[in-house]
Amino acid sequence: MSLSVPRASGYRGTSLGAFESVWSSKRCFSVSGMRKKELRAMSEEELGGIKVQQERLMRDIHETCEWGVGERWGSAPTETGMSRLSLSDTDKQARDWFVETTKTLGCTVTTDAMGNQFAIRPGLKDGPPTVAGSHLDTQPTGGRYDGILGVTAGIEMLRTLHDNDIKTTFPVGVVNWTNEEGARFPISMVSSGVWAGDIPISHAHDLKEVGTGTATMKSELQRIGYLGDIACSHEAMPLAAHFELHIEQGPILEAENRKIGIVQGVQAYKWFTVKVRGADCHTGTTSFSHRADALLAASKMIIYSHRAASRKGALASTGILTLKPGSTNTVPGSVDFSLDIRSPDDSIVEAVEADCKTAFSAIAAGEDIDNLNTSFTPSSKSCTVSWRTDSNSPATRFHPTCISCVSETTKALFGEKQEELTKAMTSGAGHDSVYTSKRVPTTMIFVPSRDGVSHNPVEFTKPEDCATGAQVLMGSVLRYDLLRGEGKV
Amino acid sequence: MSLSVPRASGYRGTSLGAFESVWSSKRCFSVSGMRKKELRAMSEEELGGIKVQQERLMRDIHETCEWGVGERWGSAPTETGMSRLSLSDTDKQARDWFVETTKTLGCTVTTDAMGNQFAIRPGLKDGPPTVAGSHLDTQPTGGRYDGILGVTAGIEMLRTLHDNDIKTTFPVGVVNWTNEEGARFPISMVSSGVWAGDIPISHAHDLKEVGTGTATMKSELQRIGYLGDIACSHEAMPLAAHFELHIEQGPILEAENRKIGIVQGVQAYKWFTVKVRGADCHTGTTSFSHRADALLAASKMIIYSHRAASRKGALASTGILTLKPGSTNTVPGSVDFSLDIRSPDDSIVEAVEADCKTAFSAIAAGEDIDNLNTSFTPSSKSCTVSWRTDSNSPATRFHPTCISCVSETTKALFGEKQEELTKAMTSGAGHDSVYTSKRVPTTMIFVPSRDGVSHNPVEFTKPEDCATGAQVLMGSVLRYDLLRGEGKV
Repeated sequence: MSLSVPRASGYRGTSLGAFESVWSSKRCFSVSGMRKKELRAMSEEELGGIKVQQERLMRDIHETCEWGVGERWGSAPTETGMSRLSLSDTDKQARDWFVETTKTLGCTVTTDAMGNQFAIRPGLKDGPPTVAGSHLDTQPTGGRYDGILGVTAGIEMLRTLHDNDIKTTFPVGVVNWTNEEGARFPISMVSSGVWAGDIPISHAHDLKEVGTGTATMKSELQRIGYLGDIACSHEAMPLAAHFELHIEQGPILEAENRKIGIVQGVQAYKWFTVKVRGADCHTGTTSFSHRADALLAASKMIIYSHRAASRKGALASTGILTLKPGSTNTVPGSVDFSLDIRSPDDSIVEAVEADCKTAFSAIAAGEDIDNLNTSFTPSSKSCTVSWRTDSNSPATRFHPTCISCVSETTKALFGEKQEELTKAMTSGAGHDSVYTSKRVPTTMIFVPSRDGVSHNPVEFTKPEDCATGAQVLMGSVLRYDLLRGEGKV
Repeated sequence: MSLSVPRASGYRGTSLGAFESVWSSKRCFSVSGMRKKELRAMSEEELGGIKVQQERLMRDIHETCEWGVGERWGSAPTETGMSRLSLSDTDKQARDWFVETTKTLGCTVTTDAMGNQFAIRPGLKDGPPTVAGSHLDTQPTGGRYDGILGVTAGIEMLRTLHDNDIKTTFPVGVVNWTNEEGARFPISMVSSGVWAGDIPISHAHDLKEVGTGTATMKSELQRIGYLGDIACSHEAMPLAAHFELHIEQGPILEAENRKIGIVQGVQAYKWFTVKVRGADCHTGTTSFSHRADALLAASKMIIYSHRAASRKGALASTGILTLKPGSTNTVPGSVDFSLDIRSPDDSIVEAVEADCKTAFSAIAAGEDIDNLNTSFTPSSKSCTVSWRTDSNSPATRFHPTCISCVSETTKALFGEKQEELTKAMTSGAGHDSVYTSKRVPTTMIFVPSRDGVSHNPVEFTKPEDCATGAQVLMGSVLRYDLLRGEGKV
């Protein structure tokens, strides 16, 4: 399905003003006769009748994506990627929109000392809000859905509640977490990390932007006016629960024709830099038996890590490899490569690490591991290998009540097709929900990503899938609020 | 054996003036009673009695290496590398020394339009000279022996002939070829290539220096005063034969305790850039079965090339590997790597290339080649691979008469130990002799390199080995002159 926004009436290549005129004429409410209704008084059928609007959601996504337009990949106006680095001028535009929009929907907007934005809609009772949270910043060559979908879907929830004048028992809201990507300031999920108490705020404030610039997170928060007065803390800004809608960033849902991933947790990962040292030598004058070829050894290690992870159902990946000296006729004496090991199970990550550590040492020493040296000319020289641990993120298990809220919502939505259209999944990537889950009940909802592509301009999720995700997000938040009202959580 | 120059008497850390004072007091002639002797009238025993002087040779090497001192690797004054890029100010100083020194030894010095310097010592008869040639330029992080030994040993030959007043039948001489390294102006052996008629002089003159500078070979030749009047051509400056003494740049002679490599030719090589294309994806969210991992495929290819070359007794090496996008949590979708295939036999290079081309395509397609996919999780996605040929240098066979001159000289020098102390070898690297061999009888002589290290500051050849090489170089040149005098060549 292509974009459902009307293209013939001024949408293609038009300004934001034209967007507005198109959409203003389309304001409509899908749930009539339910105004001023208390959520807790609704039947299951009435709850299911509260519907988000796909076209309004897509308008929010594409309208806000005018701030930070990235690389073009197709001819339609929305067929561009995004480049909206955290705390940039375009991020400020998106933040301003967040404030203005949620205020018109009856929310109080609070900004904390990390620039995290909390738009809270009052309930019948006071208390911490149940929120939908994600982030509006993107990778430098990112797409339109990662993070953005989660926040705009949260706002679509607010619009739907507002238009239908539905009163939740406790407050609900939307959170925009700052610098989730870690692309500009090089710690991912840094601001939910500060909120959770895992990262000291001084460390986060002092983070310098990558590249040649000299700005820090704090200086940029000040510059764009988003250094909030209240502390960035789960104590100063408590939440009742955190739900995050996100694109899968992987190919499984699409490949299996499923619509919703019911996320059970986030897999563990450890990141290493593996340093292989041999000896530079001339490619033409040095026989194989006299070489300590660091790249040949690294190649065997990369293959071995893939095999070792494969045997345990884990993942092992190398995304960075640098070598020295880097000349066609010089065998490299020095190779560094990244190794990223992941599994839903911490012990499996540890086992793959241990297996690789033993095997890499043997490979460096020239031993025949796993037949990788079969039919090689053995060398009288060997390499050395050392490991540096760069990150260690244990597995996260999301909260069963939150997961149940998602599951119940999909049952109501899909009926007997629920099992066919949903999948219990583990998130492969980290998200702000990893940090919120340390403090409050949390879970995530996945929707399909075309070809599993993410962090790329061509990242794409169908409008109908975005809307389904937003519907499940809203349903899950409302169900959690109902459980709170009933004193069940 | 350590450096045999006296260290207690002002050598360590002293200026060139101190060198001079040390060495002036050591001038002596090893062949007395042979003054004004004609070479052609000498007995084999007398010929063997003409000896180069190790200490004088080492003085020339270390004294001239004051121009272009590189990275220090030890505490002694000579324990530094070299950084004397072609046509730099320090190269000019070395060239000036070449002219002055060889003139005092009775030579006529000619500079051609590529700055190649020909120092010619007259013989009893006119005719093209039999020369010892190599180069005085170095890599930016090079050593003291590559190229420099060949030229200074040629000058030591001139000094020995001069001091003993020996008349050769035809002229003999020494050549300093310009920019052999290709380090500053990016074609190796470019000036012997122009001399041989293989490279147009306009192309060579227009070569721009690497890096950010704007100088060309011609502008730098003009600037330092070495743009000669005569054409750079084997016709304008004919040679009778070319002998080149060089460090092995490999570990074989040292490993086998041999002193002289009798070089039979230069192996063939082809250089390629192999481009592997898969798809970027997230390391955490993409299962192995959905990946097109360009680095994993490239790792298998690198290992395969090593095996394929090993099976044929050839060499295959990867010295450069670049990947995109280069992030720990992104599987690289794009890898380019260099592949350097060498063998003394052209047909073997072609066979390894053909084998790799077939296998790399199969590896990219995900087939199990050579058990490299054993116990992998197969992927439903595949990579593509393409090849670009960057260089193609067929095998060079040196001239049997020149090789015989070297062999006979080592027999006279080593006696019954000749077989034990020499080895027939193929040069793995290219040299100016590759180009001279296209026009005149040519061969090379190798001496051991410590640990096979070259193009590196720690490059080292023992003084006694340098002197042995110089002795064999001189003997070979003189034997060739004798054969010419006898009308045998």
